[in-house]
Amino acid sequence: MNDVRHLMDLKSLVRSIPDYPKPGIVFRDITTLIADPRGLRAAVDELIWPFIGEKIDHVAGIEARGFILGGAVAHELGLGFVPIRKKGKLPWKTIGKEYQLEYGVDTVEIHADAIGKGDRVLLIDDLIATGGTADAAIELIHESGGETVAAAFVVDLPFLKGAARLRDKGVSVHTLLEFEGE
Amino acid sequence: MNDVRHLMDLKSLVRSIPDYPKPGIVFRDITTLIADPRGLRAAVDELIWPFIGEKIDHVAGIEARGFILGGAVAHELGLGFVPIRKKGKLPWKTIGKEYQLEYGVDTVEIHADAIGKGDRVLLIDDLIATGGTADAAIELIHESGGETVAAAFVVDLPFLKGAARLRDKGVSVHTLLEFEGE
Repeated sequence: MNDVRHLMDLKSLVRSIPDYPKPGIVFRDITTLIADPRGLRAAVDELIWPFIGEKIDHVAGIEARGFILGGAVAHELGLGFVPIRKKGKLPWKTIGKEYQLEYGVDTVEIHADAIGKGDRVLLIDDLIATGGTADAAIELIHESGGETVAAAFVVDLPFLKGAARLRDKGVSVHTLLEFEGE
Repeated sequence: MNDVRHLMDLKSLVRSIPDYPKPGIVFRDITTLIADPRGLRAAVDELIWPFIGEKIDHVAGIEARGFILGGAVAHELGLGFVPIRKKGKLPWKTIGKEYQLEYGVDTVEIHADAIGKGDRVLLIDDLIATGGTADAAIELIHESGGETVAAAFVVDLPFLKGAARLRDKGVSVHTLLEFEGE
């Protein structure tokens, strides 16, 4: 019952912005959710509960909104945090992965020493759409010798099939809120 | 005694990268500190202890590394988190502030409704150098009607005088670790 109330409250805290970043797209803005003390607390609680008691070595978060939730999740779970960043942002040796955008490609990077062989990683981001960035992040974790135990997101846009894409790779996906395209 | 041990451990967890981003500069990389479970926990503990029991309405963090620590600090203090981002990254109505770089200018933005009149804000970032970005963030909080109660950073580079610059504006500054230029 508490969970249901949390989830309903959380959904009402997401701001929907029509025609952003372009006409016809409704942007789901979680800044209003995390600006709310109960929203942030409930989102972190709901993100982590399936993983309490699981063996996890690191929490990885995807730049930039995934850093906010990922930092809180890592701290709450008593784990360290590994940033996955846009190309050229990490200062030490990196490995990178390209992924497709609607037009062109982008790259995410991870420090080459961030994940050890056999390490188990919980991946965090605010939202999953097509899953391109999360998929590339999971590849980076794999190439680092680690395993993505699960990927957790506050918002899922199921019509873009990102969660299904990650599950097809054998990654467990945990999401809190679903929104349609309109 | 515990605090002293924490602080010594924390300093050894920061990776120093010579000649990054350019020759002669030593970059202080906190990703190694926050990747360590005890490092992240101790950093968050040390960042927040002066503010326990203070009236604070929001934690604001500066993109992107300030999001990791700021998210954890907000969650731990039971407060909401307000992102201060690079230009063009926030999806709703924003106010912006330009600040000087070594060559040229940059802009940080905050959502126009993120801070209410009279709200008390704790500003978090990983590192203070010249203080240009933090100064602009404090101006944004002020223009939003709020007040920056304090600014807290894991790393201070005192030779670049950023902490002194913020204190000259009347902002309380809390830093954990100091590094010299070499």
